[in-house]
Amino acid sequence: MVHADRLLPADPTTRDIARELYDEVKDMPIISPHGHVPVEWFHDKDYHFDNPTELFITPDHYVTRILHSQGVDLKDLGVGQKEFTPEQAKHAFELLGKFWPAYAGTPMQYWFDDELATVFGIDKPFGPDTAGEIYDEINDDLKQPEFSTRALVKKFNIEFISTTDDTLDDLHLHDETNADPDFPARLAPAFRPDIYLEPYKTANWAQQVEKLGEVAGIDATTYAGFTEALRRRRQYFKAHGAVLSDHSHADVRTDRLSDTEVNRLFKQAMAGNITPEEGDQLRRHFFADQVEMAQEDGLVMTVHPHVHRDYDPQNLAEYGVNIGADIPAKAEFAVDLKSLLNKYGNNPDFHFVAFTQDETVYSRELGPLAGFYPSLYVGAPWWFLDSPEPILRYFDYITTAAGFSKLSGFIDDTRALCSIPTRHDTNRRLTARFVSGLVADHRLSLDEGKRVMRESVKEGPRHVFKLD
Amino acid sequence: MVHADRLLPADPTTRDIARELYDEVKDMPIISPHGHVPVEWFHDKDYHFDNPTELFITPDHYVTRILHSQGVDLKDLGVGQKEFTPEQAKHAFELLGKFWPAYAGTPMQYWFDDELATVFGIDKPFGPDTAGEIYDEINDDLKQPEFSTRALVKKFNIEFISTTDDTLDDLHLHDETNADPDFPARLAPAFRPDIYLEPYKTANWAQQVEKLGEVAGIDATTYAGFTEALRRRRQYFKAHGAVLSDHSHADVRTDRLSDTEVNRLFKQAMAGNITPEEGDQLRRHFFADQVEMAQEDGLVMTVHPHVHRDYDPQNLAEYGVNIGADIPAKAEFAVDLKSLLNKYGNNPDFHFVAFTQDETVYSRELGPLAGFYPSLYVGAPWWFLDSPEPILRYFDYITTAAGFSKLSGFIDDTRALCSIPTRHDTNRRLTARFVSGLVADHRLSLDEGKRVMRESVKEGPRHVFKLD
Amino acid sequence: MVHADRLLPADPTTRDIARELYDEVKDMPIISPHGHVPVEWFHDKDYHFDNPTELFITPDHYVTRILHSQGVDLKDLGVGQKEFTPEQAKHAFELLGKFWPAYAGTPMQYWFDDELATVFGIDKPFGPDTAGEIYDEINDDLKQPEFSTRALVKKFNIEFISTTDDTLDDLHLHDETNADPDFPARLAPAFRPDIYLEPYKTANWAQQVEKLGEVAGIDATTYAGFTEALRRRRQYFKAHGAVLSDHSHADVRTDRLSDTEVNRLFKQAMAGNITPEEGDQLRRHFFADQVEMAQEDGLVMTVHPHVHRDYDPQNLAEYGVNIGADIPAKAEFAVDLKSLLNKYGNNPDFHFVAFTQDETVYSRELGPLAGFYPSLYVGAPWWFLDSPEPILRYFDYITTAAGFSKLSGFIDDTRALCSIPTRHDTNRRLTARFVSGLVADHRLSLDEGKRVMRESVKEGPRHVFKLD
Repeated sequence: MVHADRLLPADPTTRDIARELYDEVKDMPIISPHGHVPVEWFHDKDYHFDNPTELFITPDHYVTRILHSQGVDLKDLGVGQKEFTPEQAKHAFELLGKFWPAYAGTPMQYWFDDELATVFGIDKPFGPDTAGEIYDEINDDLKQPEFSTRALVKKFNIEFISTTDDTLDDLHLHDETNADPDFPARLAPAFRPDIYLEPYKTANWAQQVEKLGEVAGIDATTYAGFTEALRRRRQYFKAHGAVLSDHSHADVRTDRLSDTEVNRLFKQAMAGNITPEEGDQLRRHFFADQVEMAQEDGLVMTVHPHVHRDYDPQNLAEYGVNIGADIPAKAEFAVDLKSLLNKYGNNPDFHFVAFTQDETVYSRELGPLAGFYPSLYVGAPWWFLDSPEPILRYFDYITTAAGFSKLSGFIDDTRALCSIPTRHDTNRRLTARFVSGLVADHRLSLDEGKRVMRESVKEGPRHVFKLD
Repeated sequence: MVHADRLLPADPTTRDIARELYDEVKDMPIISPHGHVPVEWFHDKDYHFDNPTELFITPDHYVTRILHSQGVDLKDLGVGQKEFTPEQAKHAFELLGKFWPAYAGTPMQYWFDDELATVFGIDKPFGPDTAGEIYDEINDDLKQPEFSTRALVKKFNIEFISTTDDTLDDLHLHDETNADPDFPARLAPAFRPDIYLEPYKTANWAQQVEKLGEVAGIDATTYAGFTEALRRRRQYFKAHGAVLSDHSHADVRTDRLSDTEVNRLFKQAMAGNITPEEGDQLRRHFFADQVEMAQEDGLVMTVHPHVHRDYDPQNLAEYGVNIGADIPAKAEFAVDLKSLLNKYGNNPDFHFVAFTQDETVYSRELGPLAGFYPSLYVGAPWWFLDSPEPILRYFDYITTAAGFSKLSGFIDDTRALCSIPTRHDTNRRLTARFVSGLVADHRLSLDEGKRVMRESVKEGPRHVFKLD
Repeated sequence: MVHADRLLPADPTTRDIARELYDEVKDMPIISPHGHVPVEWFHDKDYHFDNPTELFITPDHYVTRILHSQGVDLKDLGVGQKEFTPEQAKHAFELLGKFWPAYAGTPMQYWFDDELATVFGIDKPFGPDTAGEIYDEINDDLKQPEFSTRALVKKFNIEFISTTDDTLDDLHLHDETNADPDFPARLAPAFRPDIYLEPYKTANWAQQVEKLGEVAGIDATTYAGFTEALRRRRQYFKAHGAVLSDHSHADVRTDRLSDTEVNRLFKQAMAGNITPEEGDQLRRHFFADQVEMAQEDGLVMTVHPHVHRDYDPQNLAEYGVNIGADIPAKAEFAVDLKSLLNKYGNNPDFHFVAFTQDETVYSRELGPLAGFYPSLYVGAPWWFLDSPEPILRYFDYITTAAGFSKLSGFIDDTRALCSIPTRHDTNRRLTARFVSGLVADHRLSLDEGKRVMRESVKEGPRHVFKLD
C-alpha cells in the first residue's frame, strides 16, 4: 500500500537524485527533542495500548478535529470520556472510516496509511468498508509482545526522545527508565514552566506557586523566592537529563519591570488581584528571567508562541484542552525579540529555537535574524505546518536567508507514538525532495547534498539541542 | 490556438495522471453559485450582445484595469459612457490589441485566448495586427442565433447560476425565466443587503430604509421594524429560489450592542447623525443579525470582506464603481470570527463561506478553522486570486489543514458571460494539476484522486450551497 | 564547475523551452539602474582590488552575516578595521572556507561558485581544504591588467550603471568618467536624500542642512530654503546624468502638514528639539515634497522602505552600518500610498518603483495597485529576496495581477562588483525558468515568451528608468 518513492519528486531526473539523498539518511536513528508521549508508556516494561482507537484517535487532536469538522461529536471519539467501552471504541474507528474521504490530502491521511502499512503490515486501503476489519486486525496485533511501547521504540530506532513534564515532577520515572538497560533509547524530560509565568491566565496561580516553593524547598511567595524556585527546578530538570525548556505564550516579548514594580505586581498576583494587562507584564518579565537563567544553566529554549488557545469555549467546557481548537495567531518576532537578541543574541552558547505557524515571518523575520544571530535557530514547521506542502514551503522560505545550519531539524511534537517514525520519515523524504531540487539546479553537488541531508537529520539536531 | 493539455503539468508522469483526472470532470455541468450576470440577459428570449467590446471590455474591470495601467483612459473603453458608437467600440477593441503584450501571464490573456478559440472558433493569435479583423468576425457571430445568451447558457452546459440582486427586487424576471421551459438552467437570485447594513457609508441610507419598509410591508424606520423587514426580504428571496446571502464589509466582526444602544444609534442613523465608528458598530450588530437569521432560514452566507473599495476617487467620480480600483486589504478572521463561531460554528446546518484576497490567512486561519468548525467553509480564491498561480497556491495552503471537503468549489463571480465556461474549465484543469501531484506523490490512489475531482466539481458545491 | 543549465528547470520539456528563452537574452548588455559600487572604482583608470577578501568578504554584508551567525567575529573579517594585514585577509578567506557548508542553499554560495568559475576560471570546489590556494590564485589574478575594475566593466558587458551618492557630491568623478572615451559604460549618479528627510534620526541634522544650503547656494535653514536647496540638488544630479532618486524610510506615507505646522516643526528640528513622532511627521511631509518635485523634474523614484535598520546596537557601535543586521519590517503600501496615488498615480510620466522585502504585499497590494495605476511599478525582489526561490515566488505572486510590463526589471543593488554579472545572469535564468512554465502550460507561445524575456532585460528597464 505504500510506494518506495512516496513524497519524492515525480520528474525522473530529480527523483533519482532524491532517492540517493533519502537513502543517505533513511535508516539513521530518530532524534526527537520535543514531544508529548507520556513517560509511563516508556517506564512500563510491558505497556500495551487498549485498542486502536486509544492509539490512533482519542488522544490525537489532529485526527479528531477533522471528524469534528464533519459534524461528529467529540464524545463519540472518546474525547473526555472516563468510560469508553470496546464497542464505543470500535464505533469511533468506524466513524473514522466513514469520514475518511474528508482526510484526502491531509497529513493525517498520509501518516495513517503509512503507519498501517509499515507498523501493522496492513495491505488494504482504509475506508468505510474496511475500517471494521482493520480495527480487529490491529486490535489483535496490539496484544502481541512486539507491540509493547518499548518494543516499538526499539523497532522505530529512536535514539533520543524527550517528554514534556510537570515542573514539579520528581522525574523518578525518567531516572528509572534510563537506568534500565532494556530501555533502548535515551529519555529526557523537558522543563515547561508556562503556567507559573501566566499569573492572570492560570487558575489558582497562587496555590500553584506555593506548591512550587514546597517542591523547590524555598518560600516562593515572594518574587525573589519564586525566581529562585524556578531556577532550582530548571537545574533539577537538567540534572535529570533535560536539554531544553519549552515555552508557549501569546508573544515573545521580554520587557523588564523595575524591581519595585515587579515586587508590587507579584504581591497583587498572589492576592489574585491583577488585570489581564498586568498579567502580560509579569509574564514578559518572568520570561526574561527564564532567558537569563538559560545563560547560566545552558538549557536550550524552544518557543512555540502566537496561538489562540482553546478557541472554542463550548468544546473546552465539555472536553477540555488539546482537542484541535487551538488556532494559530499572527506572529511577531523582529520587534518583540529585539531586546532579547540585543542582549544575548551574540552568545553562541545560548540556543533559542523559534517556532511559528505564521509562515509570513519565515522569509521576513526568522530567516534574516537566524542568518545573523548565532543564538537564534528556526524551529521546524510546527503543528498545522507539519505536513508535506508546508514543509516544502518552509525550506523554500528559509534556506536562502539562513542556510540549513540554523534550522532545528525535525520536531515531531506528538503524543501519537506510532506516528513518530512516519513523521520523521516524511520529513526526511521532503528534505531529500527539496535538496534534490538544489542538486538538479546545479547549485549543490550530490556529495554536498548528502552532507546537507546528514546535517539535517543528525549533526544539526545534536548541535542545536546540545546532545553531545 | 488552444492546446488540449493547457495548464496541466509538464512532467510526463504527472501530466498523464492529470489528464485522467481532468477527463473525469471536464464535461460535468457548471454550477455557478455566485456571479454578477444581469438577469435580463437570461430573461430575454433572444438577447444578443451589441458588439465584442460590450462583451469583452467595457463591463469587465479585470480587462479595463490593465489598459488603464498602460495609460489608456477608461472613457476610451466605453466605461461610464452613455453613448458609445460602433466606431468607438471597434477602436476600444483595437486598443486592447495594441496593449495585448501587457496581458502576458495574466488570467485575462488566458481566458480571452481560450474564449476566442472555444466560443468563437478563432484560430489566429490576438494582438495589435489582428484585433480589427477579430473584432469584425466576432461582431458578425454575435448576430447569429447560436450567440443569444440563452443559446450560450445551453452551449456552456450551465446547470445552476445565481445572479446578485437588489434587496428590493420583486424577482419576477427570475420567476418568469425559471418558469420558461426553454431556459436551460436553474436560475437563482442572491440576497445582498450590504447597503442596508452600512448606515454611515450608504448615501441616503434613511431613504433606502424607508423604501425597504415599503417593499417589506412594515415600518422599517425603527430598529425592530428594520430587522423584521430584512428578515422578510430574506424569506422572499428564499421563496424565489435564493440559496445564499452575500456580504462584503470592511471586517467580519459580529459585536452586538445592547438593546438600548442599538435603538439609540439606529435613531441617530436615521437622522443622518452618526460617526464612522458608530456606523461600524451598527454594521457589526446588523451583520450579527444576519447570522442569526441564517440559523432560522438556512440561507448560506458567502462573505467577501477586507477590500479597499473605490480606492481612486478621481476615477470613481468620473466612471463610477467597479472599474478595477478596488484593492485588497489585510484580512483578519481568527480574532474577528470568534464570537460568531463560538455561537454557531458547531451547527452543521449553518454554512458560512469565507472568501479572502489576503493569502496569508489561508494556512494560518481559514484552514485551521475550517478543519475544526462544521459550519465554516473556505471560499474559492477570489478576484485577484482567481488565476492559475494563486489557485495552485490556494490548494497548497489549505488542503493540508482542511482537506477538500471544506472548500466551496469554484465561484466565477463574474459579469463576463463568455468567461464562465473558461473560468470553470481553468479551475478544473488546475484542480487536476494539484491532485495529480498528490497521486504522483503516492499520497492518493488514482481512484481516490478521481473522487476528489468529482467532489470538487459536483458534490462539494451541491452540499455547501444546499442545492439538493 | 558551473553547469550550462544551472537554475533552469529539471523537467526535460520545460528545460528545453527555458534554454531557448535564456539564449534570447543571455548576451544582452547589463542595465544596472541602482547599486552601490563606489564611483572611484570606475573613475580610476587602473583600479585593482587589494586582495580577494577586500573583493569578496569585507564590504559584502550578505557574506559577513552568515559568518557572524556561525559565531565569527566581524573584526576577523576586516569589517570596520582600519588596518587589515594580508595575513589577516587570507585568514578571513580561510574562515569563509571553514564555514562554507553553512552557505549551502544560499544565493551567496551560488554567486560565489559562479564568480570563481566565470570570472576567475577556477575549476575546483571552494571549501575548507581549498580556500587557501584559491585565495592565492585570485590574489595573483587581481594584479593582472584584465582585472582592473574598468576591464571588468567591459568584460561584464555593463551598458548602464548607477552609483548611489552623497547629496552634496559635485559629481565631477562621474563627469570625468563619462567624458573618458575609454570608460565602456554609461555611468549615472543617484540622488539619495534620506538623511535630510529624517530630522530626528540623523545625527547633527541641523549642521547637515546648513551644509546642504552652502552647496545649493541658498540659505537652507528655513523650510522654504531647505526645500529649494533639495530641488536644486535634484536638478544638479539630473543635469549630471542621474535618472532616479532613491529613498528608504520606515514607511511610505506622504501626509502633509499645514504651512504653519511645517514651518514651526522645521524650526524646532533645526534647534534639535523634536520628538520621534514629530520627526516622522516632518519626514512624511518632506517625502511628499520629493514626490511633487518628481512631477517637475521627472526623476524616477525608487523606494526601499520598511526595514529595521541597525537592529543590533552592539555590532553597530563596534562596526558601523551595513553589516547584515538590517532586518525586514512588515510592509504597508495600500493604505500608506493612497494619498500619493490619488494625486499622482494616474500620471504616466511619473514613475514610482516600490520595493519590498515583505512578500505578503506582492499579491495583496503591489500587484493590484501596479495593475491599475500607470505610475506604479513593482521593484525587483530586493536584498533577502534577491535569490532563486524568492525570485520565482515574486513572479508567481505578481504577474497574474500586473503582468510583466509593470516590473522594474532586475536591480542588483550591490557593492560587490564581481557579483553584478552573476546576479543579472541568475535573474535571467530564473526569468527564463518562470516564463518557460507559462510556455509549457500553453499560456504563452514560444515567440511571446521570447518577447517577454527581451522586455524583462531590456525594454522594460529602459522604459521604467527613462533611459532613452
